[in-house]
Amino acid sequence: MREIFDAELKQLGDDLVAMSRRVEHAIAAAGEALLTQDLALAESVIADDLAIDALERDLDERCVLLLAQQQPVATDLRVVVSALRMSATLERMGDLARHVAQVARARYPRAAIDPALVGVFTEMNDAARRVAQRTTQVLTTHDLAEAEGIERDDDLLDSLHEETFRSLLGPSWNGTAQQTIDVTLVGRYYERFGDHAVSIARRIVYLVTGEFAGDPTATR
Amino acid sequence: MREIFDAELKQLGDDLVAMSRRVEHAIAAAGEALLTQDLALAESVIADDLAIDALERDLDERCVLLLAQQQPVATDLRVVVSALRMSATLERMGDLARHVAQVARARYPRAAIDPALVGVFTEMNDAARRVAQRTTQVLTTHDLAEAEGIERDDDLLDSLHEETFRSLLGPSWNGTAQQTIDVTLVGRYYERFGDHAVSIARRIVYLVTGEFAGDPTATR
Repeated sequence: MREIFDAELKQLGDDLVAMSRRVEHAIAAAGEALLTQDLALAESVIADDLAIDALERDLDERCVLLLAQQQPVATDLRVVVSALRMSATLERMGDLARHVAQVARARYPRAAIDPALVGVFTEMNDAARRVAQRTTQVLTTHDLAEAEGIERDDDLLDSLHEETFRSLLGPSWNGTAQQTIDVTLVGRYYERFGDHAVSIARRIVYLVTGEFAGDPTATR
Repeated sequence: MREIFDAELKQLGDDLVAMSRRVEHAIAAAGEALLTQDLALAESVIADDLAIDALERDLDERCVLLLAQQQPVATDLRVVVSALRMSATLERMGDLARHVAQVARARYPRAAIDPALVGVFTEMNDAARRVAQRTTQVLTTHDLAEAEGIERDDDLLDSLHEETFRSLLGPSWNGTAQQTIDVTLVGRYYERFGDHAVSIARRIVYLVTGEFAGDPTATR
């Protein structure tokens, strides 16, 4: 019985990693589509989000079945409940990648991001890609150094996000209202992406150490 | 044993209703603070969000305890797992009310919303308040007519959200970048508020009918 349960818990972990890999791919592709006006790539991110949603549903059903059939307690129970929560978070990260791709698509063939802000959005994209890679890593290895790295990259995303506002509010900004809207929304999507990764990192830290490094629901 | 369990499930439902009432209060107060430049009210929404966060943590701990001690199956299990998910959604709705209040506070004593857009934001605020009231109702009574009402108000929020963009992109808009940013972000907060309420409505419909009216994780 215990062997079957262990195999099922391992499968749950593997499914989360597979979901995270897809999110990693989505955010990288969305950023590239945004910064290079690649319409086909934007379309593929938007279409592939359905697969991430389906993975969440499968994973959730598996969790509920596991709760019903194995009646886990203590740490095992926390692992299953955490998996439920983390799959919802990964699904949301996939949505945010899709949102970035949707902005890229809506402005095509024009660039959504004004040349004056391409630098800061390139940095945001790099940080978001690292965050996504680290999320896969922390889910795979439970290595707490990766969790710390996610916190650092999230701080970086926050400060880059503030930088986008400073640019929009500075004397040299003379973009259109559409450009201001796009920078505001895409900046917010990247900032939220970091928050969600932090939530996953803190849940893993909790599973490993029994202590929350901070409030995993702390959100901006 | 069953009696204790039923009492505990009832408590779970009562806790969700109590959380929803707080969210209802928060969104109404945030909207008023936004539209009347009421700094004290904005501050109170921001401070009270901590109480909503605490309710979520309590409710989640209760759910995990219930899973461990009562080992529910079938419908009971779905009720508990749904409660876990709905408390996370309510917490997020509280965050969005706080975000609206934070924009009101950041611009005080100036109005965050340009006079040209006060009409549409008054309508958004009314729709969001109705959505929040209906969410409390659907959690209290499981009345599916309220769930339908939430879907309708969410559609209204979406169309009002689109109207804000049309205003920002129309020929008569001559607001500053700050005003464009504020309208973009606050509009997005209201639109998301509706999405979250729909997610709760669909989970209740599922618990009552066994069928999803749509994807409860469908998000924009």
